Amino acid sequence: MEVTTLFRFDIEKSDADSRARVGTLRTPHGDIPTPVFAPVGTQATVKTLTPDELIELGTTLVLANTYHLYLRPGADRVARLGGLHHFMGWSGPILTDSGGFQVFSLERLRKVSDEGVVFRSHIDGSEHVFSPEKSIEIQEELGADIIMALDECPDPLNYEYNQVALGRTHRWAERCQRAHRRTDQALFGILQGGVFPDLRTESARFLTALDFPGYALGGLSVGEPKEKTWEVLDFTVPLLPEHKPRYLMGVGSPEDLFAGVERGIDIFDCALPTRLARNGALFTSHGRINLRKAEFAEVATPIEETCGCYTCRHFSLAYLHHLYKAEEILGLRLNTIHNLHFLLELMRNIRTSLQEGTFGQLKASFLSHYVPVQDEAQRRDNLQQRRGKPGRRHE
Amino acid sequence: MEVTTLFRFDIEKSDADSRARVGTLRTPHGDIPTPVFAPVGTQATVKTLTPDELIELGTTLVLANTYHLYLRPGADRVARLGGLHHFMGWSGPILTDSGGFQVFSLERLRKVSDEGVVFRSHIDGSEHVFSPEKSIEIQEELGADIIMALDECPDPLNYEYNQVALGRTHRWAERCQRAHRRTDQALFGILQGGVFPDLRTESARFLTALDFPGYALGGLSVGEPKEKTWEVLDFTVPLLPEHKPRYLMGVGSPEDLFAGVERGIDIFDCALPTRLARNGALFTSHGRINLRKAEFAEVATPIEETCGCYTCRHFSLAYLHHLYKAEEILGLRLNTIHNLHFLLELMRNIRTSLQEGTFGQLKASFLSHYVPVQDEAQRRDNLQQRRGKPGRRHE
Repeated sequence: MEVTTLFRFDIEKSDADSRARVGTLRTPHGDIPTPVFAPVGTQATVKTLTPDELIELGTTLVLANTYHLYLRPGADRVARLGGLHHFMGWSGPILTDSGGFQVFSLERLRKVSDEGVVFRSHIDGSEHVFSPEKSIEIQEELGADIIMALDECPDPLNYEYNQVALGRTHRWAERCQRAHRRTDQALFGILQGGVFPDLRTESARFLTALDFPGYALGGLSVGEPKEKTWEVLDFTVPLLPEHKPRYLMGVGSPEDLFAGVERGIDIFDCALPTRLARNGALFTSHGRINLRKAEFAEVATPIEETCGCYTCRHFSLAYLHHLYKAEEILGLRLNTIHNLHFLLELMRNIRTSLQEGTFGQLKASFLSHYVPVQDEAQRRDNLQQRRGKPGRRHE
Repeated sequence: MEVTTLFRFDIEKSDADSRARVGTLRTPHGDIPTPVFAPVGTQATVKTLTPDELIELGTTLVLANTYHLYLRPGADRVARLGGLHHFMGWSGPILTDSGGFQVFSLERLRKVSDEGVVFRSHIDGSEHVFSPEKSIEIQEELGADIIMALDECPDPLNYEYNQVALGRTHRWAERCQRAHRRTDQALFGILQGGVFPDLRTESARFLTALDFPGYALGGLSVGEPKEKTWEVLDFTVPLLPEHKPRYLMGVGSPEDLFAGVERGIDIFDCALPTRLARNGALFTSHGRINLRKAEFAEVATPIEETCGCYTCRHFSLAYLHHLYKAEEILGLRLNTIHNLHFLLELMRNIRTSLQEGTFGQLKASFLSHYVPVQDEAQRRDNLQQRRGKPGRRHE
């Protein structure tokens, strides 16, 4: 399948001191200014929010999970109801993953062969098969603007497994490309190869030869040390075509956005900010705070005086603390709005700084105040949420 | 304490064929067109909604629960944070109950004496005392526009208990009146006396002599047969002063609004519509439907084509069914918006019909389509929610 003119990626400016660039990714459902952070709408809803609120937050791309939507309500059903955009009332660009990541979480995996993956549903334990062709069929039924090739997702530190898996990922990429029919969707390839330069190089070479309209870096942010993530980016990004969008899957903490952008990443997604919000953890310019702490019980000021989000314009930390303690749904909403605003606003500031040639200063200034959460704890967070385990009602 | 000119109740028109009337209740935080239905914001939030959404729904009065707010976050804390309006970001009129109903639910009651009630917290089991003076002190700290006298809430069918309790309720009403200091709050008296005409008559006589600015009918909609509720209204309302607002506590199903309005009630509150919404039960012009039913899985139309609420303007029943099955918070929000819109719009239509002299036609037309849920089930619903039990996370 050829990529149609419905898609175009224009790079407007490249940073002089890093691999960062500003651009626009044009899709049938609208333009996406890049670099972009995509909130995660796993089950056809960014948890707790309406589409109107996503627009007010300045969201330009939403991710939805193929695995979850395939199992419930079913991709065929979504298709009969007019496709994912219409179903969830979001008329902007959507990206769906291939379902591979959830399927390859150990608990559900039954058998992998060249043909595909046999797995069990986290909802009712029923058995299902994902092949490259099946993943594409599902994603065509859902109808997202950007869809992903099915890949095998091994432990990034296990060389032998990555070596075997990589061949399969590449053969699956070819089959996904052959199976893909819809001309109003861009199918991205996914590089694998763990933390190993030779495998990542092989993956970059193989997949760029297939001339996908965009490339994702898979198998990262899944438990490996963070320095390794950045090392992989440092040696992999230069192997990718300059004029095509690059997508780092599952990354979305404030400090990581800087690290990804300066290494040439254009697209990020992560459930972390929305999941943290539901656990009472909020981003501030000094780092994360948690509402459960009694110290907030009588704080009459908002999370941050300078924040322009709906939550900070209307409510005190004391009220948010109360909603948290009282387990009120409104608290989950207000926290989600704040955390997404924080990340989306940060990305807008990053974009502006790149246009104005002040990215280095913005990064230095932001990181001089912001104290990141310990790497390990955050990795665990990421891994847990990306596995999409059947968790508590609101996880 | 004298009622100040900050409050005024103007009756604009009385129905020729029933005791119904249209009016305006003026409060320091705005005018309340009556008859009015007040959504319940137990813990300083109408569950799942923002104040902006309440305004969009046309909410003109919100009820908050003294018992819950006293225990968490604490009325003194709310006072230090600027009072309930500021704390929850709702600048319209608020009504607080006395805390009596929750305290008198059997599970928590420890001891009742003339002095007051000893009870245990549903949160941590700690022991507390509500006296008339304490209930007023708490309600003054919260700062609602309309506050309620502390009353004893017996089983409405037990004559002996009602006889004993009524004397206490009356003495407490006098003490509440003496204790009340804030001139920007209207303190309403609460009639008790179960389903017994002689006791209700005694209660009406005693309390009207105290010249409260408004009267509530307590001890109803708590498990008695519905005909009994209406009988009590039929013989009690004529005993109340014509020019003062009448409040029927805990009533809020569509058919009951008609029954209450035609018997001369001006104010209603009920957690039923919001609680039903969180359980997937939705009001329609034909009765209640429940989203859990598989029959809605592929219905591409909204709950009601003619409904003007945000939910019906944007989403299909199929999507709401999916959100319900997937336990997504957005579903709880969208359902709540629809149910509150349904009741508030119905009340607006009732008001207009009274102004235009077509109340009887509206009632006949509405009830010719609307099939109420069996009385008994609904009574149970009401009782359960009014007890304010520590239920599931989102109840």
